[in-house]
Amino acid sequence: MDEGRRRVVIEGVSPEIDGGQFAIKRVVGESVVVEADIYTDGHDAVSCALRYRRDEQTEWTDVPMTLLGNDRWRASFPVMELGSYRYTLIGWVDHFLTWSRDLSKRIEAGQDVAIDLEIGARMVDAAASRASRGDAATLRRLAKSMRGRAGLDAALSPELGLLMERYGDRRFATDYRRELPIVVDPPKARFSTWYELFPRSASPDPTRHGTFADVRAMLPEIVGLGFDVLYLPPIHPIGERYRKGKNNTTEAGTDDPGSPWAIGGAHGGHKSIHPELGTLDDFRQLVDAARDVGIDIAMDIAFQVAPDHPWVEDHRAWFRERPDGTIQYAENPPKKYQDIYPFDFESEDWEPMWRELASVFTFWRHQGVRIFRVDNPHTKAFGFWDWCIDAVKRQYPDVILLSEAFTRPKVMYRLAKGGFTQSYTYFTWRNTAAELREYFTELTRPPVVDFFRPNLWPNTPDILPEALQLGGRPAFIARLVLAATLGASYGMYAPAFELMEAEPLAPGREEYLNSEKYEIRRWDWNRSDSLRPLIALVNRIRRDNPALQSDRSLRFHPVDNDQLLAYSKVTEDGSNAIITIVNVDPHHRQSGWLNLQLDEFGIAGDQPFQVHDLLGGGRFLWQGGHNYVELDPVAMPAHIFRLRHRMKTEQDFDYFV
Amino acid sequence: MDEGRRRVVIEGVSPEIDGGQFAIKRVVGESVVVEADIYTDGHDAVSCALRYRRDEQTEWTDVPMTLLGNDRWRASFPVMELGSYRYTLIGWVDHFLTWSRDLSKRIEAGQDVAIDLEIGARMVDAAASRASRGDAATLRRLAKSMRGRAGLDAALSPELGLLMERYGDRRFATDYRRELPIVVDPPKARFSTWYELFPRSASPDPTRHGTFADVRAMLPEIVGLGFDVLYLPPIHPIGERYRKGKNNTTEAGTDDPGSPWAIGGAHGGHKSIHPELGTLDDFRQLVDAARDVGIDIAMDIAFQVAPDHPWVEDHRAWFRERPDGTIQYAENPPKKYQDIYPFDFESEDWEPMWRELASVFTFWRHQGVRIFRVDNPHTKAFGFWDWCIDAVKRQYPDVILLSEAFTRPKVMYRLAKGGFTQSYTYFTWRNTAAELREYFTELTRPPVVDFFRPNLWPNTPDILPEALQLGGRPAFIARLVLAATLGASYGMYAPAFELMEAEPLAPGREEYLNSEKYEIRRWDWNRSDSLRPLIALVNRIRRDNPALQSDRSLRFHPVDNDQLLAYSKVTEDGSNAIITIVNVDPHHRQSGWLNLQLDEFGIAGDQPFQVHDLLGGGRFLWQGGHNYVELDPVAMPAHIFRLRHRMKTEQDFDYFV
Repeated sequence: MDEGRRRVVIEGVSPEIDGGQFAIKRVVGESVVVEADIYTDGHDAVSCALRYRRDEQTEWTDVPMTLLGNDRWRASFPVMELGSYRYTLIGWVDHFLTWSRDLSKRIEAGQDVAIDLEIGARMVDAAASRASRGDAATLRRLAKSMRGRAGLDAALSPELGLLMERYGDRRFATDYRRELPIVVDPPKARFSTWYELFPRSASPDPTRHGTFADVRAMLPEIVGLGFDVLYLPPIHPIGERYRKGKNNTTEAGTDDPGSPWAIGGAHGGHKSIHPELGTLDDFRQLVDAARDVGIDIAMDIAFQVAPDHPWVEDHRAWFRERPDGTIQYAENPPKKYQDIYPFDFESEDWEPMWRELASVFTFWRHQGVRIFRVDNPHTKAFGFWDWCIDAVKRQYPDVILLSEAFTRPKVMYRLAKGGFTQSYTYFTWRNTAAELREYFTELTRPPVVDFFRPNLWPNTPDILPEALQLGGRPAFIARLVLAATLGASYGMYAPAFELMEAEPLAPGREEYLNSEKYEIRRWDWNRSDSLRPLIALVNRIRRDNPALQSDRSLRFHPVDNDQLLAYSKVTEDGSNAIITIVNVDPHHRQSGWLNLQLDEFGIAGDQPFQVHDLLGGGRFLWQGGHNYVELDPVAMPAHIFRLRHRMKTEQDFDYFV
Repeated sequence: MDEGRRRVVIEGVSPEIDGGQFAIKRVVGESVVVEADIYTDGHDAVSCALRYRRDEQTEWTDVPMTLLGNDRWRASFPVMELGSYRYTLIGWVDHFLTWSRDLSKRIEAGQDVAIDLEIGARMVDAAASRASRGDAATLRRLAKSMRGRAGLDAALSPELGLLMERYGDRRFATDYRRELPIVVDPPKARFSTWYELFPRSASPDPTRHGTFADVRAMLPEIVGLGFDVLYLPPIHPIGERYRKGKNNTTEAGTDDPGSPWAIGGAHGGHKSIHPELGTLDDFRQLVDAARDVGIDIAMDIAFQVAPDHPWVEDHRAWFRERPDGTIQYAENPPKKYQDIYPFDFESEDWEPMWRELASVFTFWRHQGVRIFRVDNPHTKAFGFWDWCIDAVKRQYPDVILLSEAFTRPKVMYRLAKGGFTQSYTYFTWRNTAAELREYFTELTRPPVVDFFRPNLWPNTPDILPEALQLGGRPAFIARLVLAATLGASYGMYAPAFELMEAEPLAPGREEYLNSEKYEIRRWDWNRSDSLRPLIALVNRIRRDNPALQSDRSLRFHPVDNDQLLAYSKVTEDGSNAIITIVNVDPHHRQSGWLNLQLDEFGIAGDQPFQVHDLLGGGRFLWQGGHNYVELDPVAMPAHIFRLRHRMKTEQDFDYFV
């Protein structure tokens, strides 16, 4: 039989993703708060510790746990370095603690404790045999005192308590049966602001193809707008066979530049650069220049090929062959996508294929790229991503991967569990207050909050949602504020958003008319009605208010009008608190009564406090949780209130005592 | 690298207790309904199966699963034999199913499918190589047809679909990584009605100690009351040293019989019989006679000893020795229980101790006892119970163990997970409608419903709850109805309950005055105001209505008066439905409006239906979910309504068409 004297149970550990199969996610400097149910039979006292280590270390660091009540214990530790950590727990019956607790009760009841002191002294002697030399001597001295005239003083001394905690009898300790993994990412994994543009449209000269140099020239502007990630659609050579024309037509004209996602041609594949954009050197210069101003270039990684991609020739086994000897193009029957070949993840040659695909990430990481936006990861095998992300991040723990999987919820979550750092979300289609409340409550509570980091996009080159088609400028502003305050990470397909492009390909469709995916667009970047000034303001509010730089504290607050959505974020220490209220109806002025639980903000029920609208500039004096709000979408469909605790009163004057 | 071509994910399996560490519980004849999230990348079709087997078998039986939507699948299987089963899941990308689904779409769109038919025919050929001889021939014939003039007919034939389901390509199937255990118990594990009495008080002659023969004489009465388990406190020799006197005083008189839980003395220990009750043979006759009338004798197993128990002499190492050479008695400092020695579960000699304790169960099982009520299991090591119950049930899968752990919630649940068949509950102290609703919702939902079987007791020899002390006859009746209808298993410390004993040891205490634990009581079993007739009626209602014989369907229904608690139970096929309404206020008439969701009972919103009060006999015609109820606690504090769907209308007459 296994050792039967391990009497402590450890269970209900949180966080823990699918029994420890997947890692929880943190960024450098965050703390990991762990709770567990830990108890034993009978009345004996239990002691327990949370243990953690870096993956490559073998020694655990122990943190004593604190009882919260109902057999629930808690402890925490900080993660200060990039990479992988592990944590587990240990618990043991603490006979000395039981004895010590009981001794006090016996003394209180006036019982004779002579034999009890002897029992305790024997435990102290045993601890001495486990102790370092100096401590052993102290313990033996204390044991001797316990048997003498001042036995009680020695028994109850804090010195003894501390030493016995250090040298407790853990012979029959229970180790939690799992070691739970943590991945520690760079800070931008949690808080990032993304700007998407097509470099080919970046030329100030409308007669020529945009280049990396043109993009570089835009960097000061983008910094000024408050973005810290600049995401570029694929920059590789674009295929020529079956190239798509304007508005996704199947016949491309000779001038049509094609979709950047149809990757590969005579000029190379996933490790090459589309010649019209510049050289690899130009690209590296862009990456470096961006880094210098605090911006990361995010590359688009789309694992699919155009028919003229070199891999088609060199690695035919990576694709599925049809009985007529042709390669199977992408399909969603009856629709055919003849310009794209998908990889066959059941290929006999899957191992070399996995390695080559992973090397695409490391190749670009060598050029300085640390952020990747991965196109349609849900059409590649989960096992591939689990392996690939682990392999890449072991080598480069500073890499961030954004999963672009607009698909079914469990698939999205599985990709995040498998290692994607951030994920696109359903925010794009969540418009009503009830929808947003339900979805973001799910995203910001365990278990989801520990493995899935949302990155909110009001639009993308693929998606012009109905709300933006129909709601005009108020809808754009409301969606901007929602994305920027509900999500610590958000992004926009920028020119189309700034300039409020709202024309769909056809009624009822959510593709853009004249989509930049299939043609070069000439944007009037400095149009007078552009949303740029407002975007810059919102991003400055995000930068100035750490509460908005994390999603974990998100809480919704009831308003008696369903068109008004109210929510708050607060820093862990409570020093920064933001309450956002959005009118989700772009057409009508809406008003209602907001109901705040003031204790969540550390405000006593009768204490007046100020809310300062960082968007509109107004300052309101509120008292109590029940407050009136009114938002006219034409003027400004949202408040972003910074809550300020301290109101001056007459008691603050010198003469008041 | 591990095989990378397994593309299916299986997760979110339910039921599953702590990652499969513990078994789910069922009784013979029940079905096990299993759900899981199963999906793959991309657009390919998935097929999956639920697999189960008896523990000792090696071959799985597969049940195809059905998609519920949102990647959730379900299947079920029945468990028809006592003992242990296992289940797991398997899923695979079903290329033939994908092909077949896509073929229909291509045909609909008028595409040329010649090459597609060839692709399908190759899959059929491959399946033929996996098939039995006869099926292989059929498959080859079908593949040939698919390449011929009537290719489409063959491709879409149901015959081909069935064969391809049977011989699908599972090379890259994903096995769920765990085999999940099930324990299948006898029917009384789920539905049982317990009657507790002290045999020593069973004598009709007040001058003599009751015997097993006296208990035997009471069997017809107990059957008539509708009980099927007769639970006896410990029947072993009672210790003499430090024996407790009346009302738990420390000085016993020479006539005091002592507490049956102070086990062991000159006449033996846990495998012996207290001589005044009769012989082992008498006991066996009682067990057999009870069995003949459908009653199981439940024995009390209390693993603790009186100072004169033979084990103290023979196995000193099983107890903790104090420095003065005495054995450590039970304590909860400053309280001392010198009449009881607890076992030391950290004894060096723990293995022989475990085996001897387990042999107590098997010894009594050999005498015909199949049900054990285990006293204070939470003061013994969890690891011991895990091992002991498994060992006993491997040999005797018909054994039922009731855990008497009135302790903290996680400890109670852990004992149930470790194998206890049934458990005492907090019902004893849950009195208000809100308390009962919250607690029984927790108990009857996953995960608790799958491992914890509540057994509800309104009183025990240890506990006379305040509600019964203060509420008079209406409280006794309300608590009886609640226990009998909320719990498929319930029991009572019978004479004290029938006769409505309500006097505590002292004000504010919940021990009985003149507790039968310390003295022989002479009960007036046939007192005219006894609750016996009502108890018999309630138990007949339980027997006649299968809805009350399971807890899984329990649902609460809102009433606009907090003193009225309403809930229902319905059989799986909907043929039997019981709605119980209890006035939990024993002092006042209460009325209110009950709000039923009629679709839960298969009743259309406008269809009239009858509720028949099985307690009071009244029949009420209701229409719609909103109905008035009124309960006078003095008359009868509860309705137990049987819902009858079909109301006769004029359309039932012959002449109506």
